[in-house]
Amino acid sequence: MSRKNNRSLKEKFSLKNSLVKEALSEFLGTFIMIALGCGCVGQAVLSRGVHGGPMTVSVGFAMAVTIAVYVSGGVSGGHINPAVSLAMCVTGRLKWTKLPIYILAQFLGAFVGAAAVFGIYYNAFMEYSDGKLEVTGPNATAQIFATYPAPYLSLVNGFADQVMSTAVLLLAVFAILDTKNKSVPKGLEPIAIGLLIIVLTCSLGMNSGCAMNPARDLGPRLFTAVAGWGMEVFTAGNNWWWVPVVAPLLGGVLGAMTYVIFIEIHHSDPQPGEENDVHTKYELTNMA
Amino acid sequence: MSRKNNRSLKEKFSLKNSLVKEALSEFLGTFIMIALGCGCVGQAVLSRGVHGGPMTVSVGFAMAVTIAVYVSGGVSGGHINPAVSLAMCVTGRLKWTKLPIYILAQFLGAFVGAAAVFGIYYNAFMEYSDGKLEVTGPNATAQIFATYPAPYLSLVNGFADQVMSTAVLLLAVFAILDTKNKSVPKGLEPIAIGLLIIVLTCSLGMNSGCAMNPARDLGPRLFTAVAGWGMEVFTAGNNWWWVPVVAPLLGGVLGAMTYVIFIEIHHSDPQPGEENDVHTKYELTNMA
Amino acid sequence: MSRKNNRSLKEKFSLKNSLVKEALSEFLGTFIMIALGCGCVGQAVLSRGVHGGPMTVSVGFAMAVTIAVYVSGGVSGGHINPAVSLAMCVTGRLKWTKLPIYILAQFLGAFVGAAAVFGIYYNAFMEYSDGKLEVTGPNATAQIFATYPAPYLSLVNGFADQVMSTAVLLLAVFAILDTKNKSVPKGLEPIAIGLLIIVLTCSLGMNSGCAMNPARDLGPRLFTAVAGWGMEVFTAGNNWWWVPVVAPLLGGVLGAMTYVIFIEIHHSDPQPGEENDVHTKYELTNMA
Amino acid sequence: MSRKNNRSLKEKFSLKNSLVKEALSEFLGTFIMIALGCGCVGQAVLSRGVHGGPMTVSVGFAMAVTIAVYVSGGVSGGHINPAVSLAMCVTGRLKWTKLPIYILAQFLGAFVGAAAVFGIYYNAFMEYSDGKLEVTGPNATAQIFATYPAPYLSLVNGFADQVMSTAVLLLAVFAILDTKNKSVPKGLEPIAIGLLIIVLTCSLGMNSGCAMNPARDLGPRLFTAVAGWGMEVFTAGNNWWWVPVVAPLLGGVLGAMTYVIFIEIHHSDPQPGEENDVHTKYELTNMA
Repeated sequence: MSRKNNRSLKEKFSLKNSLVKEALSEFLGTFIMIALGCGCVGQAVLSRGVHGGPMTVSVGFAMAVTIAVYVSGGVSGGHINPAVSLAMCVTGRLKWTKLPIYILAQFLGAFVGAAAVFGIYYNAFMEYSDGKLEVTGPNATAQIFATYPAPYLSLVNGFADQVMSTAVLLLAVFAILDTKNKSVPKGLEPIAIGLLIIVLTCSLGMNSGCAMNPARDLGPRLFTAVAGWGMEVFTAGNNWWWVPVVAPLLGGVLGAMTYVIFIEIHHSDPQPGEENDVHTKYELTNMA
Repeated sequence: MSRKNNRSLKEKFSLKNSLVKEALSEFLGTFIMIALGCGCVGQAVLSRGVHGGPMTVSVGFAMAVTIAVYVSGGVSGGHINPAVSLAMCVTGRLKWTKLPIYILAQFLGAFVGAAAVFGIYYNAFMEYSDGKLEVTGPNATAQIFATYPAPYLSLVNGFADQVMSTAVLLLAVFAILDTKNKSVPKGLEPIAIGLLIIVLTCSLGMNSGCAMNPARDLGPRLFTAVAGWGMEVFTAGNNWWWVPVVAPLLGGVLGAMTYVIFIEIHHSDPQPGEENDVHTKYELTNMA
Repeated sequence: MSRKNNRSLKEKFSLKNSLVKEALSEFLGTFIMIALGCGCVGQAVLSRGVHGGPMTVSVGFAMAVTIAVYVSGGVSGGHINPAVSLAMCVTGRLKWTKLPIYILAQFLGAFVGAAAVFGIYYNAFMEYSDGKLEVTGPNATAQIFATYPAPYLSLVNGFADQVMSTAVLLLAVFAILDTKNKSVPKGLEPIAIGLLIIVLTCSLGMNSGCAMNPARDLGPRLFTAVAGWGMEVFTAGNNWWWVPVVAPLLGGVLGAMTYVIFIEIHHSDPQPGEENDVHTKYELTNMA
Repeated sequence: MSRKNNRSLKEKFSLKNSLVKEALSEFLGTFIMIALGCGCVGQAVLSRGVHGGPMTVSVGFAMAVTIAVYVSGGVSGGHINPAVSLAMCVTGRLKWTKLPIYILAQFLGAFVGAAAVFGIYYNAFMEYSDGKLEVTGPNATAQIFATYPAPYLSLVNGFADQVMSTAVLLLAVFAILDTKNKSVPKGLEPIAIGLLIIVLTCSLGMNSGCAMNPARDLGPRLFTAVAGWGMEVFTAGNNWWWVPVVAPLLGGVLGAMTYVIFIEIHHSDPQPGEENDVHTKYELTNMA
């Protein structure tokens, strides 16, 4: 289409309602994250390690988040995660009335993203286990979509794991976005968030795959339930499914509050006549 | 040469015609991408995994794209891919009259880049398979240059794979270049595009090597046809060769249109008197 | 809480004393570094290499440092390392009176970070060695927290290793922060420091794990001593424990001084009437 | 020392002569590159692959270059490579009279850097081969310091390899530094150069280790000759030693000239009254 048509299209279809725009943006962002991120897990699992391993999954999933935030960050904030949206509401950065729409869009995006992974690797899935879609055992493929606990993991330890990893995620995201701290240059926040995901998956990924995101986990799990893996995706791991849904919501709020209490609340306001510790200022500009 | 001679050289040889400049730029960029990118595949294959593996190929090819865009981005836009150029035409960002020249330059660059890989690793190729250049089997080396489908892959699934991966590529490239979204700082777009290539090859690389680029695939394939691998490079994989030529062109346009429809068309114009949702603006500057 | 409550909270709890703020910041930063960094070592060790290896540990620990500096950099400088704080004092960038508080906060943060790793992976630790926490042997896990020398390493070579690696660390940190050199853009210093940690752990990590930080090493070692590994954590490796405490303090000062003497001291002051080597200036802006 | 002493030190020792400053800078930068870069090779070799492999060597050496350019870039341009300095002279960006000093400083830095690697890993070297320092065979360690050709490599192919890889290095460095192309933001050039080294070592590293730098290769080789490996370091590989000295000098000039001829010479001068292809300008700002 020409630029001229483009403009008339814009007149016809451009959305005036910002909440609809934001919902589209969260849907598309979460879709990209899951299609590419779960795609990385799929490539490592379905190739039985030949075309991927811990590094491609960790770096790949992290860059999927980075790209997803680039796609959706300027319109909806690029949350792509109900735990992030909830923490934003709790700290007064997102209107509570928007929360249900954000979360719905995120779940839909994750569901459709999981479907895309299944579609793209349909032949590979069929080959991998002779057409059987299994949740446990050596030919299991359900873990490509949702997370499952390691055999040794207790529910209590698993819940604590998801609380803490999501707390660290939100704490660090708040630091990255805090323009009064060591602020990341505008436009590079998605890359800093990607580096954060790399370290989180390399350090806290062994217990249960480090979901840290109810939409990322439950959306694809629902897809597997209807696509042929069956209800075992909910009962497996001692009914594990609710842990990566509930614990991240709690952990995200905890992490955000921790950052506010330890760091953000103490930033001095830029008021005239304020007492300045000149020496300290000097150090900071000089030191890191 | 001295600065003075440099200036007189400039007077003599400097091209006034911007299309010729741009063709040179696309040629050089695509040459760099293929010489370095296919070089990474070559190193992993020819060393039988000793000097490379999935990570060196994924990260290496991605950084080859990054460097190629640095080399050609400021002059011709750094498309180095007919699917990108076509999507730019369709969305009114490149004149249709320039398209054939861009594509021709990209194919030539890719062909010459493949020749460079063959030349640099000539001894290694001869050693690897006792002088025989094979398309299939344990000593195959044709996959260093062009992509071939995995044994399990059907044509339909393979075509969908190339449509979708190129759609995601273009969707994300449009996001990265959209200055009204979470825009990448000027001069860092090539690095963001490199990170995008990392996740695409880690997530969608298993079916058929994730070409996403007709020049990247057909140029080197033509080289292998004439350099000794023979016409089997076209017949292999159930005449696979046309899929990574046709599907990326279609996918690229689809991805670009998706971005325009989901995100770009809804950006509010910076017009005076426009209704502003102040709350939303506030969130965005605070949130990601 | 709403923005309004947030503001009243701020009035009640906001710290006026910058040293207390800085101590909180160093505590939180060091906690993050150890929780995530030692978490990476834990994941690689406890999964017996299945979920991690040299690359995930090197890149993961480096990104843990990056995130920790983002969390604490804007408030306290993001030292998270007594060797850095001491070098800053010696070169006049931190008041000596602040040094004890910085170091205490760093040790506490590292101790609590180690406890977090133990808590999150409690089930995994119990599984790994049937509930026994061992310092040496094939089921050793103490090296997840603190560093131990390779069997071949002499005390003299080990001491030199820690002096040199910390010297290079500080030399490079001073270069990265020197705005008169090839200065890293404001807000990206934590990423440059992360890249520095990647190369240090890939190149100087084999002798004894490249601690380069008394708090990073002694804090978690103390934790292991009380958490069940016992006093062997101090006697192992020929009483190794004091080397990564003392040598980094010495090496850090040496490295900082080397940078000052080789580079910083020679920067020309921006005084009017100063003799300018115009040609040199030209080169520098053109060359790198 | 206090800031006050610092100032008086500066008065006493600050160098007025810019060439001496630049020599110190090139020495220190090349020292850092070799100490850390060859350290990465050492860690991979001496641990027999346990603590390193192709990825740690490629990424580690690349980041060693990045850090070295941060250390020396603002003072001397951060060449740390005679092939770079020569190309800068040939294209009029460095005075020819400075060339010998730059090269001398680079060789000394590389020699001392090699000595540092040997010192830090002295115990490990002794352990690895029972005290014997070997150039060839399964316990060879000379390749930690200098490059040696793969068994299959002919001199002609090896020479072409070094010409081409250094040509691509300089071509890309010129693109990265060209502010009229897709220019890297000021202060991030060292990171872009690091990414370039990653792809060069992943793609062109298999033939002979991708030295691309006479100082990086001959300096450490001289060190090994005197440190106990003996004169075999020069005779090995059919007297290979001179190839990574001569070929990079030639390749670097070729690559720089190629960039100038294909891209730089055609940049339009910012002169008033110049004919502007408005459409082209528009595309470029929109496209990459």
